[in-house]
Order: sequence, then structure tokens, then C-alpha cells
Amino acid sequence: MERIDQLINGGVKIIQSDEVFSFSLDAVLLADFVQVRQRDQIVDLCAGNGAVGLFLSQKTQGQITMVEIQEKLADMARRSVSLNQLDNQIQIATMDLKDSPQKLGHDFADVVSCNPPYFVDHQQSIKNPNPYYAIARHEIKTDLATVLATSQQLLKTNGHFYMVHRPERLADIMFACQAHRLAPKRIRFVYPKAGREANMVLFEAIKNGRPNGIRILPPLVAYTDQNEYTPEVKRILHGESVTGGSPK
Amino acid sequence: MERIDQLINGGVKIIQSDEVFSFSLDAVLLADFVQVRQRDQIVDLCAGNGAVGLFLSQKTQGQITMVEIQEKLADMARRSVSLNQLDNQIQIATMDLKDSPQKLGHDFADVVSCNPPYFVDHQQSIKNPNPYYAIARHEIKTDLATVLATSQQLLKTNGHFYMVHRPERLADIMFACQAHRLAPKRIRFVYPKAGREANMVLFEAIKNGRPNGIRILPPLVAYTDQNEYTPEVKRILHGESVTGGSPK
Repeated sequence: MERIDQLINGGVKIIQSDEVFSFSLDAVLLADFVQVRQRDQIVDLCAGNGAVGLFLSQKTQGQITMVEIQEKLADMARRSVSLNQLDNQIQIATMDLKDSPQKLGHDFADVVSCNPPYFVDHQQSIKNPNPYYAIARHEIKTDLATVLATSQQLLKTNGHFYMVHRPERLADIMFACQAHRLAPKRIRFVYPKAGREANMVLFEAIKNGRPNGIRILPPLVAYTDQNEYTPEVKRILHGESVTGGSPK
Repeated sequence: MERIDQLINGGVKIIQSDEVFSFSLDAVLLADFVQVRQRDQIVDLCAGNGAVGLFLSQKTQGQITMVEIQEKLADMARRSVSLNQLDNQIQIATMDLKDSPQKLGHDFADVVSCNPPYFVDHQQSIKNPNPYYAIARHEIKTDLATVLATSQQLLKTNGHFYMVHRPERLADIMFACQAHRLAPKRIRFVYPKAGREANMVLFEAIKNGRPNGIRILPPLVAYTDQNEYTPEVKRILHGESVTGGSPK
């Protein structure tokens, strides 16, 4: 069953379905972390139901292309775009992201964002029996190296790459960035609560940028001890509550 | 002019001299971050006036070898060790750290700790005119790659390497770890104040450990908005104030 959820922030409406895919806090925080200018060309990889791209549309007049391999999710994204009357700003490309530079072009994007599958697809990994979720969570259809290689191709020199991922993959991320000439620039760790280890990393890199000079932004704590969003997360959501943001 | 400073925590006395070298909060936080067992063999590289090793002696009965290239600093460390009657636990080796595996042995240390010079020795770098400070701060006599290569040689397999450094060198650190088969394991970022970017990173790696699985520990904030140590830092110092801990 589908539903339409709305973030207070910007008022964008998003078609969701717990059977297929619901956006998570990860998408909200990634969209907040991404810096866009008014005329940027933006590509959002692993777009899912389009949450990151829809949020970004509230921050820029630039063109946004969402790339999503799963037809059912791409269709939800396409309908959300129409629902918000954003058809002139947002296109949805239903394709394997590795084909996107050939189809969309090389060296044209100012910004690439991505909320990729987090988990290595080990033979023995326990995966969600729901294939939509399994593909969104595990590196079944794509992987970190492919995401970075593709982003390198899509981006202009000095274009910015943004990703949300898991801290335990940080070494992988750094090595893959180096292999694909993306220089890590700003990192922000997200902690579920004060005093807990980080469970999310927001990551920015620059195509062909100078290595080093990494900045570690102030920590972002998601929940209070009373399991409510912290004031900063509420501010990001721009209201007292968010509907529909459920753990991916 | 020398002085004797004392941390509340453990009561160890440390001979300091602002003209030569004074330990900093970095050394205190590194010693807190290091995990030692009772019989560990420990080597502290870039030992300076011995602060890290002296603090560690309060956490273990294990043997500690301090390696310091500057004779004047090594002499201060040696006198502090005697002052604290720790001559049976702590040895000072005055040598270039790169010679230490040959002199001290290979594959024997359970723990290597290091508070190295933070800054790349660019020709055009502005350096402290005081040569003691310049050597302690800039990679004049040693560098990150040498520290990691040396630590890899000193450590047993699965031995633990601990370092405090600057976050902007994080990519350098990760790549040098990979080059020397040290697997990053636990990372803790230190923020000068709430809402500010990190200015210190505490870093643990394991010799020949499995890559990935990095844990990002809860953030450590050093100062309150009123420029006092935060409760956590006070707890680490184990008292209301620290004497002598001044910025390196």
C-alpha cells in the first residue's frame, strides 16, 4: 500500500510504500549535507523513491537527474515529481548507474549525490527477503567502487560528490576515492545518541581535488535520550516532527 | 627554566620547560585513548619529555620504552622517570625512531603509541624558530610513513598502534596504514568546542588486522563555551584542573 508523506521542510510530498521502499533519516541528512548552487547540474544516484532529489529541489533551481535501477521505485519517484509539479526540474533515468555516464554524458555534473547500498554482498550475508529492500541495502546491483567510478565520470573537474554511508566502511571509502581521483573534503559523523558510536557518515569529495585538508564537521546527534529527534535534526526537518521517515 | 608539573590523575610528576618542550592536552588524551594490559610491552615513539609514557605507567605494570631523538628532551624524560621512581618500568632510548626496531627488536611490542609531529615539512612552512618545537611539530626528523613503517616492525601481529594527529591528515594516515598493513580500528575525533570542527584525531590500528570494521567513538569535546575543560576532560585529568598542560 502506498502513502504520500510530507516533510515540513519545503513541503515536498513523497510517495512511499513500506512494501517497496521508504526514505529514511539518511536521505534527509544527506540532502541537508549537500551544498548546491542555483544553476548546478545535479545527479542523484541510487535514487530510490526520489527522496534525496526531491529534497534537493527545494534548495536549487538546477536540473536534477535521478538514476534508479529498480523500475518500481523509479515509477514512484516519477509520480512524486509530478505530484510536486517538478517535471521541469527533475528527470528520472531508469538504468544501471554504471551506464549513466554514457547515457547522460561525461564531465557535466556539478554535484553527484548518492545514498548507496551500505552492505557488502557476501555470499553468507543475511539479506532482507524483500528484494526491493535487499537491493537498496546490499551491494547486489552496484557497489562502492562502481558508484565512485561513475561519479568521477559524471562530474566536472572540481565537481562535488556527496554520499551517506556507514562508518565501518570508511577505509573502503577512502581507498576507493583515491583510486578514482576523488579527494575527501568534508566528513560529518552522525551519532544515534550522545555517548554512542557513530552509525552514519556524511562524506564530501572533490573530483581531481587536492588530497588531504579533510575537515571533520561538528558531530550530529540524531536522538535525545528520550528517543526524540535532537533540536538540530528537528531544525533540518524544519518542524517538530517528520512523517514517514522510517529506518531503511 | 624548568618546572615540575603534576597531573591530578595518578599523581605522576613531569619535568617541563617552556623553552624546550611542554606536554599538551594531546598527550593526555592519547594516553587516555591507549588500551594497555598489565604485562604489555609498550613503545612510545616521539616521546618528547615522556608525558605519554609516564601517564601510561599509571595504567599498566608492563615495560615501557620511550624513543626520543632530541637528547635534551630525552634527558628531561629520564629525570622525570627517576623523580617518579619508575626506573624499573621505563627505559629511555635516545635515537632516531627509524633505528629502533634494529636496536630494540622486531615483533615484540604489544602496543606502540605516538604523538608525532603533525605538519608536513614544506620548504615554505612557517616553523617555530625554537628548534625543539620545530622538530616536535614539523616532519623534519621523521614523518608519518616512517612512524607507521617503524611501528609495523616493532609490533607483534595483532599488536595495537595508537596515535594522536590532525584530522586534515586523515587521508594520509589511512593510506600510510594500508601501505604498512596496519588496519584502522577505532577513531575518536576531538572537538575544541561544541559546534566546531575537530582539531585532533585519536587513531588505533592493528598490525595485520582485517581491513574495515572501523569504529567511530563518541565525540570528545575539550572545552565548554566558558573556555573550561568539559566534564569528560576533567574526568580524564581526574581533577578539577591540570597544571602545566599547555598547547604544544
